[in-house]
Amino acid sequence: MTAAPPIPMRARLWAEFIGTFWLVFGGCGSAVLAAKVVGDDGVQMGIGFLGVALAFGLTVVTGAYALGHISGGHFNPAVTLGALCAGRIEAKAVAPYMGIQVVGGAVAATVLYLVASGQDGFAIDPSAAGSFATNGYSDLSPGGYGLLACLVLEVVLTAIFLWVILGTTDKGAPAGFAPLAIGLTLTLIHLIAIPVTNTSVNPARSLAVAFYNPAALGQVWLFIVAPLIGAAIAGLSYKALTAAKD
Amino acid sequence: MTAAPPIPMRARLWAEFIGTFWLVFGGCGSAVLAAKVVGDDGVQMGIGFLGVALAFGLTVVTGAYALGHISGGHFNPAVTLGALCAGRIEAKAVAPYMGIQVVGGAVAATVLYLVASGQDGFAIDPSAAGSFATNGYSDLSPGGYGLLACLVLEVVLTAIFLWVILGTTDKGAPAGFAPLAIGLTLTLIHLIAIPVTNTSVNPARSLAVAFYNPAALGQVWLFIVAPLIGAAIAGLSYKALTAAKD
Amino acid sequence: MTAAPPIPMRARLWAEFIGTFWLVFGGCGSAVLAAKVVGDDGVQMGIGFLGVALAFGLTVVTGAYALGHISGGHFNPAVTLGALCAGRIEAKAVAPYMGIQVVGGAVAATVLYLVASGQDGFAIDPSAAGSFATNGYSDLSPGGYGLLACLVLEVVLTAIFLWVILGTTDKGAPAGFAPLAIGLTLTLIHLIAIPVTNTSVNPARSLAVAFYNPAALGQVWLFIVAPLIGAAIAGLSYKALTAAKD
Amino acid sequence: MTAAPPIPMRARLWAEFIGTFWLVFGGCGSAVLAAKVVGDDGVQMGIGFLGVALAFGLTVVTGAYALGHISGGHFNPAVTLGALCAGRIEAKAVAPYMGIQVVGGAVAATVLYLVASGQDGFAIDPSAAGSFATNGYSDLSPGGYGLLACLVLEVVLTAIFLWVILGTTDKGAPAGFAPLAIGLTLTLIHLIAIPVTNTSVNPARSLAVAFYNPAALGQVWLFIVAPLIGAAIAGLSYKALTAAKD
Repeated sequence: MTAAPPIPMRARLWAEFIGTFWLVFGGCGSAVLAAKVVGDDGVQMGIGFLGVALAFGLTVVTGAYALGHISGGHFNPAVTLGALCAGRIEAKAVAPYMGIQVVGGAVAATVLYLVASGQDGFAIDPSAAGSFATNGYSDLSPGGYGLLACLVLEVVLTAIFLWVILGTTDKGAPAGFAPLAIGLTLTLIHLIAIPVTNTSVNPARSLAVAFYNPAALGQVWLFIVAPLIGAAIAGLSYKALTAAKD
Repeated sequence: MTAAPPIPMRARLWAEFIGTFWLVFGGCGSAVLAAKVVGDDGVQMGIGFLGVALAFGLTVVTGAYALGHISGGHFNPAVTLGALCAGRIEAKAVAPYMGIQVVGGAVAATVLYLVASGQDGFAIDPSAAGSFATNGYSDLSPGGYGLLACLVLEVVLTAIFLWVILGTTDKGAPAGFAPLAIGLTLTLIHLIAIPVTNTSVNPARSLAVAFYNPAALGQVWLFIVAPLIGAAIAGLSYKALTAAKD
Repeated sequence: MTAAPPIPMRARLWAEFIGTFWLVFGGCGSAVLAAKVVGDDGVQMGIGFLGVALAFGLTVVTGAYALGHISGGHFNPAVTLGALCAGRIEAKAVAPYMGIQVVGGAVAATVLYLVASGQDGFAIDPSAAGSFATNGYSDLSPGGYGLLACLVLEVVLTAIFLWVILGTTDKGAPAGFAPLAIGLTLTLIHLIAIPVTNTSVNPARSLAVAFYNPAALGQVWLFIVAPLIGAAIAGLSYKALTAAKD
Repeated sequence: MTAAPPIPMRARLWAEFIGTFWLVFGGCGSAVLAAKVVGDDGVQMGIGFLGVALAFGLTVVTGAYALGHISGGHFNPAVTLGALCAGRIEAKAVAPYMGIQVVGGAVAATVLYLVASGQDGFAIDPSAAGSFATNGYSDLSPGGYGLLACLVLEVVLTAIFLWVILGTTDKGAPAGFAPLAIGLTLTLIHLIAIPVTNTSVNPARSLAVAFYNPAALGQVWLFIVAPLIGAAIAGLSYKALTAAKD
């Protein structure tokens, strides 16, 4: 979260590109390729929502340990906004960070599409909730949850995500454990929210797969707006509440 | 566990509020929203008891890494009592800590209720064991376990929980790993006890959801008494046994 | 693994008692109480072999972080023997360590029996493989594996377990991570071996539950002999191979 | 990754032998012995693809914590090639490392065959995808994915694997966490790719089990070529991109 200024912006953006690629390719890839694998005997061998939750979290654990010392390891426009609100990143880096995150996610979705379409019968079904790992509400919510429930959940979960990010990278926290705690928070968020929204908390992740699913693209605004609101609330409140500490 | 005195009580209570909110919202939320998700084909995609166990533990791993350096990361009245018995927290902080923990849990249950009721057909069934993630014994135990078995299990598991908390935050233990070990202990406790009591070891967690389920409220006394007994035994015995070390 | 001499033996034995209690109560408890929970609809909510594997490993992760700085965190007679062979523990501590480990495990099995019998219809079936979490071979192997396969597997897995223990606590290894790596090795061992022997690698764990299952008691010799052979091989070979390093 | 020169080559090769043995025995062993365990009632008790993914990753987490300070903890010819491309290992060590890795894997497959054949009715079916944990494409891909999809996926995943390895062992990264992050990356890779290729990213792992399955041996070239290409791309690009940092 505290990218040292001497690291050139080019290196930081490469790190954000690779990290966001990894988040979308690994997280959405596990969902598309491996969540449900059922043989003729009806036995589920696939990883289920638990495995997908683990996969999303591990993209951040591993990406942040590998690249966090270069870029801060955001991989998510909502994280970049929260970092800005809390005074952890310079304002001029925000737009390039967000831009490259969206590009990295989109490239990942493209490679994933290439791999997934290597199976006979692969197709994206815009009328089905969560097809190609997209996020949705109401008729496109995996469990049919309404717009308000989806909005509240995404705001709350993104806010807590940012609180954990800001808290674990603060000066009093144990050094070195932040990537582990942050990634496992993303796992936890997915353990809660996959049946509701298929879990976003990350506009770059939602946009990346929505480019391949027109129905999801029509609902993607919620998964841009809600995470950004949650992140801003968390960034501002964290700064205000911990100011009392100093 | 060793909140430095200069941190103002206001900040410490905010941290306990957020942490207990996260524990109840994340743990109970995963149970209510994601434990069982079965499609028309009968395939279980939900996270099951294993996923719920992981979720409860990760709330503490992540909350304690993020907030432990502010409040000590109790998020549980039994932990606060055990810390008192072992001489790890000043007596005057105990009542405020316990109070804000109960409030944080109750607010989490309320937000969870709002989200869960966004699905058509959502209802809490007081005659069903574990409905809305509540704890229970006998007819409200998920596996129909009797009162004595439930009492013994909750006392034993809370005592071991406190032993791990006190041991991992003691001076000889490896620095920085306590939140990981403590949270994973809560995961382990859930891997054992969900079929018996739906797992409490935390009065604030039990009360929070019982407010929404009258049958569970009638049994909640056990999940206040048993964890507090277990924690007191552990706090006193840890202090006595390790005194020999010094 | 390198218990500092000034810690009194009384404290070290208490730590081994609690740690082995926790290993058997947590590991076998998860298997007995939570591995298979199937409702009328046939949906598996229980934690399966994966959850049991995680539980066994987490008992060691958490126990070793909490108590390792007191006793070295063996919780297993085979580990104590391997430590002796590698020159990591004084010879006179071996018998007391092994004795208290067996006692701690037996007490855990007793408390577990008390809890498990709180469910109507609970019974131990000596003719069924793995009943009350016991270990077995041939007709008492969960998958019907023969004696030779079970012997080889237990020897190999215990040897690798000791290699990881000795390697992660050696001077060149990253400080503080040993309990995590050692516990996760036990998880991994269970991910491999539950269908074969129900996984021992620990005579105290095997004896503890065999006391409650006469058929298992008749086969428990294998789960005493094989882990001790594997541990001795590892302790001696580790010492010989790494001597070249110094 | 930065094996200190004074460690004699004999010790380094022993460490690579044991580590690769453990990777193949633990990872493929969990797949062969424990992935699918279904009783007469049709309930899946086995660990599924999620458990196998965890097992592969934990072999590296535990092996690298135990042996990484001796050999660097490669356990994989693709990792050794990537390390060479990035300037992390001396050229003359490459051939011995790769050779001993292949031997270690082959020995592991042999012991695994011995254990697995201890169950009545055990047989390797060359016409079935993934039999004896082998890798394959097209008709030998678990999900029937074509050659191009399998090639792309193996190249991309190995490249990211190497990026994480090189990044987490670089000077700016938090010390001590590399084995955890690297092993969890291998778990994540398996969460994505088991249904596609049964997951290789490691020629030694693919060869080891292919020796026992003639059909798989005919396709093993892909799982030698693709990981080596991915690793070389990552090693060279990491070196080029991070040169800008210095």
